[in-house]
Amino acid sequence: MKPTDIAKEGTEMTEETEHMIEKNGAKETETVVSAGDAKEMRAVILSGFGGLNKLRVTKKAMPEPQEGEVKIRVKACGLNFLDLMVRQGNIDSPPKTPLVPGFECSGIVEAMGENTKGFEIGDRVMAFVNYNAWAEVVCTPLDYVYNMPDDMTFPEAAAFSMNFVAAYMMLFEVANLREGMSVLVHSAGGGVGQAVAQLCSTIPSVTVFGTASSFKHEAIKDSVTHLFDRNIDYVQEVKKISPEGVDIVLDCLSGENTGKGLGLLRPLGTYILYGSSNMVTGETKSFFSLAKSWWQVEKVNPIKLYEENKVIAGFSLLNLLFKQGRCGKVKTVVEKLFSLYNQKKIKPVVDSLWALEEVKEAMQRIHDRGNIGKLILDVEKSPTPLMASDSTETSEAGEEEEEHEGDNDNKERMPFIQ
Amino acid sequence: MKPTDIAKEGTEMTEETEHMIEKNGAKETETVVSAGDAKEMRAVILSGFGGLNKLRVTKKAMPEPQEGEVKIRVKACGLNFLDLMVRQGNIDSPPKTPLVPGFECSGIVEAMGENTKGFEIGDRVMAFVNYNAWAEVVCTPLDYVYNMPDDMTFPEAAAFSMNFVAAYMMLFEVANLREGMSVLVHSAGGGVGQAVAQLCSTIPSVTVFGTASSFKHEAIKDSVTHLFDRNIDYVQEVKKISPEGVDIVLDCLSGENTGKGLGLLRPLGTYILYGSSNMVTGETKSFFSLAKSWWQVEKVNPIKLYEENKVIAGFSLLNLLFKQGRCGKVKTVVEKLFSLYNQKKIKPVVDSLWALEEVKEAMQRIHDRGNIGKLILDVEKSPTPLMASDSTETSEAGEEEEEHEGDNDNKERMPFIQ
Repeated sequence: MKPTDIAKEGTEMTEETEHMIEKNGAKETETVVSAGDAKEMRAVILSGFGGLNKLRVTKKAMPEPQEGEVKIRVKACGLNFLDLMVRQGNIDSPPKTPLVPGFECSGIVEAMGENTKGFEIGDRVMAFVNYNAWAEVVCTPLDYVYNMPDDMTFPEAAAFSMNFVAAYMMLFEVANLREGMSVLVHSAGGGVGQAVAQLCSTIPSVTVFGTASSFKHEAIKDSVTHLFDRNIDYVQEVKKISPEGVDIVLDCLSGENTGKGLGLLRPLGTYILYGSSNMVTGETKSFFSLAKSWWQVEKVNPIKLYEENKVIAGFSLLNLLFKQGRCGKVKTVVEKLFSLYNQKKIKPVVDSLWALEEVKEAMQRIHDRGNIGKLILDVEKSPTPLMASDSTETSEAGEEEEEHEGDNDNKERMPFIQ
Repeated sequence: MKPTDIAKEGTEMTEETEHMIEKNGAKETETVVSAGDAKEMRAVILSGFGGLNKLRVTKKAMPEPQEGEVKIRVKACGLNFLDLMVRQGNIDSPPKTPLVPGFECSGIVEAMGENTKGFEIGDRVMAFVNYNAWAEVVCTPLDYVYNMPDDMTFPEAAAFSMNFVAAYMMLFEVANLREGMSVLVHSAGGGVGQAVAQLCSTIPSVTVFGTASSFKHEAIKDSVTHLFDRNIDYVQEVKKISPEGVDIVLDCLSGENTGKGLGLLRPLGTYILYGSSNMVTGETKSFFSLAKSWWQVEKVNPIKLYEENKVIAGFSLLNLLFKQGRCGKVKTVVEKLFSLYNQKKIKPVVDSLWALEEVKEAMQRIHDRGNIGKLILDVEKSPTPLMASDSTETSEAGEEEEEHEGDNDNKERMPFIQ
């Protein structure tokens, strides 16, 4: 099959193409045409679930938009904790590898599918993608694409989409944040944490309790009301300040924190489980054992909720978008958020920009919780010579041996999910 | 101890007085002074947990208001499904018997405690009471008393307090009812059901699905959008009309309905467990076995909520008021509701008025689900001669034998609650 044919077949052929490239192993970048060829593009590829060495930059056939899709020349992509979980295959119904990770990007509209209207070539857009964002070009359905505010930079937009939409929907759609309420958020220095803090500041007299690594406290202390070290007993600290608890608990930690979070709620309060960063803390060496605490998160007795007047919720933006078809609802949220951005009430915090080739270093940084705000893959950035040459060697040596155990764990946990 | 002394001691002495009366058994009404004596009052007394024959009207020492309390000459009291559960001792931490049941009433302010301001003698008020409402006079803290709208009748006010406040808080505080949403409510013909239907009608384009006994359908068909018989598979019926489910499920049934209710939720939807009428359906003969399905309601996995973007909540107005001290929040809700009443957007539905002496017949009616709207005890009503003479004989013969089993069950279920 000639490259031209592949390009014409569009996205459906991508996986097969990938397999072809994969067979060529490490030589793949030499066997395909140069970066300037419009029939191909650079992308980050995950060759299998596991450690950082499963990631590399490769060439893929240029995707072409199907009917209802927008083709975007990507400028910046967001990197989330969720991407670490995907890399490890530690999600429900993981897709087949090889795959291109990434769920959000910003860029410029380059083409539209047949009979597809709503954007013009050259529009600056922010978009959600169901994988495939970490590439020079992506195609995604119209419903997931939004015209960016004029003042917003591409890195800001890529830092904005998932974190601010998730934070907004949790605070205002799932919970009902109003004047005078209090909110507890973990990982207050991360992308979601900073979005939560900013959105809380748009409502009068909201008290924000945050946990974060101590070294971040100086940088983020103005964004939250009370800041605690992530290693201390936050339950006791919150109760010292607010004996009756808080109105909203946002929990990305899970495991034993669910009980703690529910215990901290005031009557009529809402606990929201939205993520699972605890399960990745051990990186490959130990995450399979930690993962158990996630899948084995204690179940909740509705009678207890009744007695205590409490609310427990789960929130997954990706499921909402890609499995549950609530794009219309998300669109109205994006519009409200852009309005807040234009009023300068919120502004995404970008931690750092990384070339595609630096994705491993970026992932290591988010894993080590070194970031304050969002990590961005800047597609047009050249890797720094030092980092670019430092290809696969990291702290993760020996992780390959863990993969068999990982497969077992994967089978075990499925019944908990479906 | 003279009656005068008892009166001076006020409410603290009530329980001891009750015990004294109780020792006299059936002769109690003969041993105390006449109804015209201002040191005493008539009240419904529950002598022990069990069937209808545990209820009778007796005389009690007149309560006097403590500091911070309002003394109310009661005109009307509300009768709720919860009162049946109390009668059976089928609640968490049941109080000691004998007791005077009843959590809500309306009437006229007769006195205030020392240093207590906020009401005038003669004020027409609606009030929550932590037991003791089914009497000619009650005393309750200021925070639980509200001046009634001028146009509201006493029976309306007694029908209003618990049902409308619960319905409002569930729809607008716990869930977040907005234009275009859909709501499923069970027992649509009951007090809460009718309140929910009316409040939903204050928001544009809200679809209400209701279940109710078929014989009520003609009477309530205009209040809900889609009405189903309570014995059919409502899950299938709702899905036929709305394949994607509903936004809010209000469940007073519990047991297997929790799973059904969660399954019917759209993404971002909220399931609220607010009661337990299933546990009383069998009356004394079988309610202990049915009670198990209530305490054994299936637990919920937060991970599943996360995957499905769902919310589960419990709501208990009495706990909110009397255990959790959220009177301030309830007061703002009552003000909003009175405003809606004054705008003629809502109006409590009164099913029937009963004399205190007819409390057994009234309870049997709510147990048999014969009511449409609220049952009211009208304190000034004289019992109809037939009903008044029909003192303890009902369909509940033989229930006494069940009580030992009941005690066992009570011990068994405690661990599920605390």
